[in-house]
Amino acid sequence: MIRHVQLGIYGLGRFGVFWAAQLARHFPVCAYSRRLHRPPAGVRMVSERQVLQCPVVILCVAISAFEEVVDRIAPRLQPRTLVMDTCSIKGVAARVMEQRLPPTMQILATHPMFGPDSARGGIKGLPMILCPVRISAAALQEWRHRFSAMGLRVMTMTADEHDHEAAFTQGVAHYLGRVLAEMGLQRSEIATVGYQKLREIVEQTCNDSMQLFVDLQRYNPYTAEMRARLEDALSSVRSQLDARCTPPAD
Amino acid sequence: MIRHVQLGIYGLGRFGVFWAAQLARHFPVCAYSRRLHRPPAGVRMVSERQVLQCPVVILCVAISAFEEVVDRIAPRLQPRTLVMDTCSIKGVAARVMEQRLPPTMQILATHPMFGPDSARGGIKGLPMILCPVRISAAALQEWRHRFSAMGLRVMTMTADEHDHEAAFTQGVAHYLGRVLAEMGLQRSEIATVGYQKLREIVEQTCNDSMQLFVDLQRYNPYTAEMRARLEDALSSVRSQLDARCTPPAD
Repeated sequence: MIRHVQLGIYGLGRFGVFWAAQLARHFPVCAYSRRLHRPPAGVRMVSERQVLQCPVVILCVAISAFEEVVDRIAPRLQPRTLVMDTCSIKGVAARVMEQRLPPTMQILATHPMFGPDSARGGIKGLPMILCPVRISAAALQEWRHRFSAMGLRVMTMTADEHDHEAAFTQGVAHYLGRVLAEMGLQRSEIATVGYQKLREIVEQTCNDSMQLFVDLQRYNPYTAEMRARLEDALSSVRSQLDARCTPPAD
Repeated sequence: MIRHVQLGIYGLGRFGVFWAAQLARHFPVCAYSRRLHRPPAGVRMVSERQVLQCPVVILCVAISAFEEVVDRIAPRLQPRTLVMDTCSIKGVAARVMEQRLPPTMQILATHPMFGPDSARGGIKGLPMILCPVRISAAALQEWRHRFSAMGLRVMTMTADEHDHEAAFTQGVAHYLGRVLAEMGLQRSEIATVGYQKLREIVEQTCNDSMQLFVDLQRYNPYTAEMRARLEDALSSVRSQLDARCTPPAD
């Protein structure tokens, strides 16, 4: 029903390649990348000028490059473009787009909360967050339907609600994934079910770039609180253990 | 073929109840518990005297009570009994049994590396560790077959090998499970796949008693090193983050 909406993907990093291919199963998709790039399945590679003429432009760039990219493209987009981003932190991204994109353009901040590793078995049922920034109710409803039709579990919330919740969910998982990778945990023949899950967390978080990890921790205003609570919890468990552990008699 | 071996389970805590019911699907099983207890499925409740007359006695008691129990039962067992334990730490358990049980008795230290939570979907393929302490090659082979026939992935190793490997697998999972529970992580609508795995680890470790957690950390000589490496890894990730994070411009 909606196959005529031409989507333009701006940026083909690890997530952009994955997301462009997913979207291309449902929409006509073209993409632009600074680097020469083999096109993802079903995606047509175009110039920067061409991608910015699409009625819907989806930014798949790192949050650390986001402001620069938005400034660069703002004057080149069509006046009635709908701009979406896919950054993992929605507060900063929403503010940048709202401040830098002309008021004729619609803005929908999005966070597809998955990637090539966690969606290896498909995207069905995975969470897709929409944070309406400057968009008509009708267009928002239309995109809720479209992403739902892709099988995603679509939720709408404010950018701040997203960032708080994400810090204490995705943020914890990524942080511990890095810590466990740093410990150098190995595959083990005697792995318990719990340990296997720990190793899966490492795999699912540490394939992402160090840049994404740092960005998640740095740009989300709530991750500092999450890290402090993690350290407090560690101290508390350590104290409980010390209190109960006089050295064993043996 | 082997249904005639009468097993006597000594102790019906959370793990004992679970293990007795599993064994009762393959062997005639009776059990003794200090507390009055509804018998697990397929298990006959008997007196302490009766359970100690079984040809095979399986101790399902906390490691912290282990020495006392072994001392109590040693003079009451039959001379040719095969004694197994199921403690999560094999070094201490093996030493206590070897020192306190008369030389006519055979001893097989075991660690079924699962419990009522991790084996909710069945025990098939889960790891079962055997640490031969004082047992004939024929009897060891027989029990390898029996546990394999139950669907378990049977491995034989020394108690020390087990403890080292377990500290850096099961020990890490239990430790982080407690830390995450202490953080009070909630169910979340926007949970990523990685976060769901974290929550599953909490569920699978924190249903076990605090006693089991403390025992795992206290009696395993390698968990101190594991905890130190975890703290080092945390410091290292924190430093890497600090080094890359000048506060964002926004």
